[in-house]
Amino acid sequence: GDDAAAAAVASRQDTLTKPQGSLGRLEEIAAWLARWQRCAMPKLDRVKVFVFAGNHGVTAQGVSAFPSEVTVQMVANFSSGGAAINQLARIAGADLAVIPLDLDHPTGDFTQAPAMDTQAFLAAVSAGYEAVSGDLDLICLGEMGIGNTTPAAAISAALFGGDVRQWTGRGTGVDDAGLNRKVAAIEAGLKRHATALADPLAVAAALGGRELAAILGATLAARHRNIPVLLDGFVCSAAVAPLGRLHPTGLSHAIAAHVSAEAGHRHLLEALSLPPLLDLGMRLGEASGACLAVNLVRSALECHQRMASFAEAGVSEK
Amino acid sequence: GDDAAAAAVASRQDTLTKPQGSLGRLEEIAAWLARWQRCAMPKLDRVKVFVFAGNHGVTAQGVSAFPSEVTVQMVANFSSGGAAINQLARIAGADLAVIPLDLDHPTGDFTQAPAMDTQAFLAAVSAGYEAVSGDLDLICLGEMGIGNTTPAAAISAALFGGDVRQWTGRGTGVDDAGLNRKVAAIEAGLKRHATALADPLAVAAALGGRELAAILGATLAARHRNIPVLLDGFVCSAAVAPLGRLHPTGLSHAIAAHVSAEAGHRHLLEALSLPPLLDLGMRLGEASGACLAVNLVRSALECHQRMASFAEAGVSEK
Repeated sequence: GDDAAAAAVASRQDTLTKPQGSLGRLEEIAAWLARWQRCAMPKLDRVKVFVFAGNHGVTAQGVSAFPSEVTVQMVANFSSGGAAINQLARIAGADLAVIPLDLDHPTGDFTQAPAMDTQAFLAAVSAGYEAVSGDLDLICLGEMGIGNTTPAAAISAALFGGDVRQWTGRGTGVDDAGLNRKVAAIEAGLKRHATALADPLAVAAALGGRELAAILGATLAARHRNIPVLLDGFVCSAAVAPLGRLHPTGLSHAIAAHVSAEAGHRHLLEALSLPPLLDLGMRLGEASGACLAVNLVRSALECHQRMASFAEAGVSEK
Repeated sequence: GDDAAAAAVASRQDTLTKPQGSLGRLEEIAAWLARWQRCAMPKLDRVKVFVFAGNHGVTAQGVSAFPSEVTVQMVANFSSGGAAINQLARIAGADLAVIPLDLDHPTGDFTQAPAMDTQAFLAAVSAGYEAVSGDLDLICLGEMGIGNTTPAAAISAALFGGDVRQWTGRGTGVDDAGLNRKVAAIEAGLKRHATALADPLAVAAALGGRELAAILGATLAARHRNIPVLLDGFVCSAAVAPLGRLHPTGLSHAIAAHVSAEAGHRHLLEALSLPPLLDLGMRLGEASGACLAVNLVRSALECHQRMASFAEAGVSEK
């Protein structure tokens, strides 16, 4: 990040007509934009939402309340404009790209085999990386994939340890029996792939999913292309968690847009040192929470760019 | 409120292409709009932000970090478009009305006399009431007034009791000595007006301020004119707290847009049973937090109005 750009924002903020620090996280957001766009007067002309979609072999273990065909049906719903993210992206003034990843070929059931071999994992990472063009000012990352809170919980447990139950929630709404099947599947996956768990990227391949790998790739591309990132919910956070484990500042260009109602998310954000902007009890995915935070970023930037200073406005200081 | 309209929203929400309840508080917001607009398909064509401004005799007790002339200077800054709220209202797609209330005549110093007599109090309430026309779909309420976290804390302590220190924060940034002066002034005010404290409206007159009384009046008008209300921070919440004390549903048409960093706000919102939408460490006033929440309301309504149902989209249900 560009320390000088961030410092320039902080200096300007202290001259604007408000008590110092009184815009709270909006001031932090303005500095964050500057740091990662590497520019003291950042912009938000091009905001893009990416929704990566994938299917999951582990659904064979009965871990989701909805059937797997809903993934492709929801991708069609995104195309025809009927999903929540279509409305939220429009309100946010953001373009929406939906990128399905080989939906006809689910990943391997990780209780039996790796979800992806190295080639499949890298192909998905590349798909995410290549999707992010260098002309964007901010990206929102999200996903759709029936069953994907199970790989997200498995990755979280593999990277951060602790009782599997603390990472495992009800996803789209499984009952108690379904929740027990999720926990059992994750425990089986952790056991089967135990020798891979020391390497965060190997965890993402063995226990993850294509849409999660693509989110990881997009987050890497954003770092290389000076684009700040808004992360969506539990699955998205788990998707990028390997980057946080690989390097202490691996996710510094990302903000957690919200904390979802899915059981493990708050704990995961704490483990990643990513305090969320919003806490609205949402648990939809699709980048819906990330998209809601775009307006906060726009508001932060608009205050930074267009407020008058004490001197300009003739307002007395302390 | 219109129970049938709210129930119609909840029924429709359960048919839309998302797991039931997965939009969290956005679903609650859509039902709240319908309930208080008394219409199953509410609208947000006319959103207006009101910033009421007043001056305070209690500033003679050294309770603010800024001099009183900043109130009129900031009103001028609002007029020329240089304040935070100008940027935030524009981003929110809302009209902004700034209403100064007799700034040349501060209220009485409540350590010595009532802040307002009955006539002055009712004039300020009326100013707020009359400002709210019936053609609005949503209003945001906020304030500007150097020293006004002191009356806000005094009202909170008078209505809800407890140690004065738990209600008293640093406002625009007083030091420890200033904080002690605030606490002493509030304790003196509570003692002087002890016989009035059983009546919530008498509390608002004796310890409040003109801009707080106007917010109370605007909130009453909104209830009578079927307009939902977004409340801003600590001062705004204290301004309407008497309505919550007068009737258990007196504030049901209002949502707390955010919880501010000012010390007493979280506690006051709990006392009023108003869970905030946002928690961004802001402490500016000016309706800034209320304005930031407009986008959440727009997003909630847009999802409600324009998402496809499972049947329309051909998506399988559980």
